[in-house]
Amino acid sequence: LSAGAGRRSASVFFLSDYGLRDEFVGVVHAVIRRLAPEVCVVDLTHGVEPFDVGAGAEALCRAAPYLGEGVVLAVVDPGVGGARRALALRAAATGGPDWLVGPDNGLLLPAAEVLGGVQRAFSLRREDRRVDGAAGGPTFDGRDVFAPAAAALASGIDPEDLGTPVEVSGLVRPVPPRLVRRAGAVNEILTEVTWVDAFGNLQLAVPSADLDPGVGALSVTLGAPGQGLGSLRRVRAFGDLAPGELGLLADSNGRLAVVLARASAALHLGAERGTPVRLTW
Amino acid sequence: LSAGAGRRSASVFFLSDYGLRDEFVGVVHAVIRRLAPEVCVVDLTHGVEPFDVGAGAEALCRAAPYLGEGVVLAVVDPGVGGARRALALRAAATGGPDWLVGPDNGLLLPAAEVLGGVQRAFSLRREDRRVDGAAGGPTFDGRDVFAPAAAALASGIDPEDLGTPVEVSGLVRPVPPRLVRRAGAVNEILTEVTWVDAFGNLQLAVPSADLDPGVGALSVTLGAPGQGLGSLRRVRAFGDLAPGELGLLADSNGRLAVVLARASAALHLGAERGTPVRLTW
Amino acid sequence: LSAGAGRRSASVFFLSDYGLRDEFVGVVHAVIRRLAPEVCVVDLTHGVEPFDVGAGAEALCRAAPYLGEGVVLAVVDPGVGGARRALALRAAATGGPDWLVGPDNGLLLPAAEVLGGVQRAFSLRREDRRVDGAAGGPTFDGRDVFAPAAAALASGIDPEDLGTPVEVSGLVRPVPPRLVRRAGAVNEILTEVTWVDAFGNLQLAVPSADLDPGVGALSVTLGAPGQGLGSLRRVRAFGDLAPGELGLLADSNGRLAVVLARASAALHLGAERGTPVRLTW
Repeated sequence: LSAGAGRRSASVFFLSDYGLRDEFVGVVHAVIRRLAPEVCVVDLTHGVEPFDVGAGAEALCRAAPYLGEGVVLAVVDPGVGGARRALALRAAATGGPDWLVGPDNGLLLPAAEVLGGVQRAFSLRREDRRVDGAAGGPTFDGRDVFAPAAAALASGIDPEDLGTPVEVSGLVRPVPPRLVRRAGAVNEILTEVTWVDAFGNLQLAVPSADLDPGVGALSVTLGAPGQGLGSLRRVRAFGDLAPGELGLLADSNGRLAVVLARASAALHLGAERGTPVRLTW
Repeated sequence: LSAGAGRRSASVFFLSDYGLRDEFVGVVHAVIRRLAPEVCVVDLTHGVEPFDVGAGAEALCRAAPYLGEGVVLAVVDPGVGGARRALALRAAATGGPDWLVGPDNGLLLPAAEVLGGVQRAFSLRREDRRVDGAAGGPTFDGRDVFAPAAAALASGIDPEDLGTPVEVSGLVRPVPPRLVRRAGAVNEILTEVTWVDAFGNLQLAVPSADLDPGVGALSVTLGAPGQGLGSLRRVRAFGDLAPGELGLLADSNGRLAVVLARASAALHLGAERGTPVRLTW
Repeated sequence: LSAGAGRRSASVFFLSDYGLRDEFVGVVHAVIRRLAPEVCVVDLTHGVEPFDVGAGAEALCRAAPYLGEGVVLAVVDPGVGGARRALALRAAATGGPDWLVGPDNGLLLPAAEVLGGVQRAFSLRREDRRVDGAAGGPTFDGRDVFAPAAAALASGIDPEDLGTPVEVSGLVRPVPPRLVRRAGAVNEILTEVTWVDAFGNLQLAVPSADLDPGVGALSVTLGAPGQGLGSLRRVRAFGDLAPGELGLLADSNGRLAVVLARASAALHLGAERGTPVRLTW
């Protein structure tokens, strides 16, 4: 299937740590609709752990290859109201999102790399982007700064009208997840859990393709000082595991993941995002 | 009110056990939008308990009478990546959804019955439905198989282009909830809790219309060996109950439900989906 | 940025206490789409605490200034199926929502005041608004009464076709949150927590602009009999606080809020919606 030829309006792909209990997400939708009624807002997720910029960056990276043309709007922003810049980044690749909008704290850069790298960067002016009726302090830039900018870019407004060009080299870069490989008599990878999904699967920073397909099982140690899980089989799908058997598979992003069939590996093992993992074979 | 005459684009009605914490649902939306930008995706719910195929089937049945034309996309799929087939089912009734797309594990059939029964069934080919950029193992068929098929069917693509016709008689059938009725000196119904909603109401498998309107109260026993709740009044609405009084009413799907006014019967009674219930009168 | 000039279809802004675990919200979307396919439904939130009419009213008020033209559909409705009326209220102001639809229990009035006051009020007829296929008891008016009315009003149907004009003076008024100010040798405000957001910030009923900007710190007592929090500094943004320091800021609605930087004041203090607060300076 190639991209459809039907009626097309601009898309804004929206990710945040706002959660869905409050009206934050709804208000951002309303602001975009008011400014650019032809735009369709696609919610990627708003379930990022509050303030966890790295988790938001990981989720954006996983989603990025599946997004069509449009604007990514991402807000995980513990520094809101402070000195951190508000950004619009132009992605180099074609076919996917053209722009990424969000705070200058490392949230956007990894996904921008997936989308071909940053071609140009703009620091958004704060004052101009306020919508009519904006009240209160500078604590909700998703509503007051980022949503108006995303709506404008989705509508084709010139980014020079929104802010000032800045050097790509000066953007805040995130700390990448741990991934150290040592070859020898015993091969070893030191890494960490980058994502615990709702089913309790433990995604690691290791691309599955980095491991020789001939390696059918790996010894896994979890945490520090370390809980030995023994030798886990690499399988193709959850159903290849016996009930209660821990295994390793290439997950839907091509990353190595520690999983249980029809049960939560995270609950079973007490693991969470950031837990260190050692693989040997 | 009859169906509106305004601008109409195709609808996809999407239900899953993906939850909203991760980006799974957002990525499925993005894939559909990329393939069929004119389609409107309506989220039915993504809060089905992980892996609970029966709960997903029940939710689809409850929603089915209210859906207009379009495609149902339902994914509760513990067997993903295994031998289970991927299905597209043609519903016989007109006015509602024409197609149901999802795994062959019993999830779709009860709702298809509500929609007039299955007229034709197709087993979707896996390989052809991958979107560009799909990476990783076969663990996210919602993204890689079902969403592309739903987008294609919503766009009017011939189902023969998507898969192979299969026998309706060979589809996996779900185990229906327990519903046994015994008439005698004492009338008795043995059933179970089919749904605990967010308000804590306990829906039973019993259509309220099956009980003679003249029966104004029933003795209810919950669980096994069984906690006697005494004789509960049948009422029309929550407000007809005194504070703290348990009662029975015809819920919004016409099913008998055990309820408390403005409080959670489930919390009060410690009941959950699947809890056995005995009614006598 | 002014309102966009692109393709515009009617909007329904939807808030409820339905949660997202069940299919309630999805079914309401489907009903609106069936009756008025050109309408765009914007979900404000469905995370209002079940039955908490006041919390729903507060959330609507916070969102109201950011909504464009359209219809507000709000359902927090513990009295469903009882004698309470179903309402459509015409807002006096232009540029924002023209109509608010929901139960006559105080949920709509505060937001209607934000939108210029109630110009006209209608009591919706129950029977006529049922969609085809509606089953069961009168426990889901969001689906059976309010959504059809919102769809009709968004489509421009004459409100006289939906119900009967009623006196605005007879509408159920909510109890406003506590806000008592006493001037003297010691200035004092007695108020309460009106909202605990997902980040744990404690919004008070006090407009920040009511406090002289020269007052740089206030003594805060929480709860009854009262836990003294000492003197808290008024700051502009979260980042102006030291780690672990409680402070006061003007939040994104212009209300005074008790906050911690990058942590939950609510968890730290054990406060919740309705907790009494005393401010002195």
